[in-house]
Amino acid sequence: MTVRIDLNLSLDGIVMPTDQTPENPMGADWGRIVEHYAATKTFRERVMHETAGEGTTGVDDRYAAAYFEGIGAEIMGAGMFGFHTFPDDPEWRGWWEDEPPFHSTVLVLTSRERAPIDFANGTRFEFLSASPAEALARAEAVAGGGDIRIGGGAGTVRDFLAAGLVDRLHVALAPVVLGQGLRLWDGLRNLGSDYVVTSEVAESGVIHVTFAR
Amino acid sequence: MTVRIDLNLSLDGIVMPTDQTPENPMGADWGRIVEHYAATKTFRERVMHETAGEGTTGVDDRYAAAYFEGIGAEIMGAGMFGFHTFPDDPEWRGWWEDEPPFHSTVLVLTSRERAPIDFANGTRFEFLSASPAEALARAEAVAGGGDIRIGGGAGTVRDFLAAGLVDRLHVALAPVVLGQGLRLWDGLRNLGSDYVVTSEVAESGVIHVTFAR
Repeated sequence: MTVRIDLNLSLDGIVMPTDQTPENPMGADWGRIVEHYAATKTFRERVMHETAGEGTTGVDDRYAAAYFEGIGAEIMGAGMFGFHTFPDDPEWRGWWEDEPPFHSTVLVLTSRERAPIDFANGTRFEFLSASPAEALARAEAVAGGGDIRIGGGAGTVRDFLAAGLVDRLHVALAPVVLGQGLRLWDGLRNLGSDYVVTSEVAESGVIHVTFAR
Repeated sequence: MTVRIDLNLSLDGIVMPTDQTPENPMGADWGRIVEHYAATKTFRERVMHETAGEGTTGVDDRYAAAYFEGIGAEIMGAGMFGFHTFPDDPEWRGWWEDEPPFHSTVLVLTSRERAPIDFANGTRFEFLSASPAEALARAEAVAGGGDIRIGGGAGTVRDFLAAGLVDRLHVALAPVVLGQGLRLWDGLRNLGSDYVVTSEVAESGVIHVTFAR
């Protein structure tokens, strides 16, 4: 069982931009760091449910496809699920409408008490209040031997990295400098020394860096 | 005439670590971000004056050799020259003893009034108090048509980058996370949008990123 994280960052390490406005709730910067991923064949088919055959098929797509391979369970924070954006909607079921792209159990870390939500495609959201280690134990119990992804958001992945619970971290560095936003690396001094670090450059100019142990 | 900067950074963008101690005045982190450069054949011959034949000859060495090619003049800050470390030595001639590896005029930005210093190998230090644009005009006058390097330190290169005076920025990202120190990218929002950005990974694992226009 491998605990995995995949993230898109700017070259200056911004994992969560802070340029959101009411008119553009994700912010323009977000688009700049995920552009290469959103252009891949895998993303367009698997997440956007577009017709097969569209999208890039190079190095970026290889990582996009690997993102989904072998995952038995996912853990995400309340913010990534959408609780912070829609705090007053008791019927909120996540951003993904009827087709969440997980196809497995997703543990949402929250202090809210909510019944699990099951989708026809095999995605199941469970809600729990737990430490990173406790959440990981629960994920392992439902992962059926598959890997466990820490999906996000920024605070959640930093908690798992700081706790030393992550076996493989893949970051895609977009060749842009944002200069503002939440930096992934802060507080993770000497992260690299526990891992073998390898890198490769995609056709898009994005640099894929993998920390593995 | 091209204005060039070459820097060694950690993956989290630290250009100047802050772990210096009296016993280790450069700090241990500095060694971690320049290790690949110090190992090159070019550095060992050109800077350390070691016997020819030693050192790496791969991608890192190609950048190390390019560092010295075509430079007609260099600009550096007072701190890089050593004035901040040895403020009370009126005879201070820089860190490099009798063999500064520049072989051209080096303009040192300082409010001190000092006579120029000439070395047998063609290096000449001139001292001036000037804005980035003024210093660049002076450098161009003495560069004999060659390129101009902004050598450092961190504050000086950031001043030139922020003023939009740099044509080519090459950063070598060592695959280590330091988590503390002076970050190059702070305040350089949207730097990449004025440049074409290309990257390649060296045998050492270091990622060479070049911003060019």
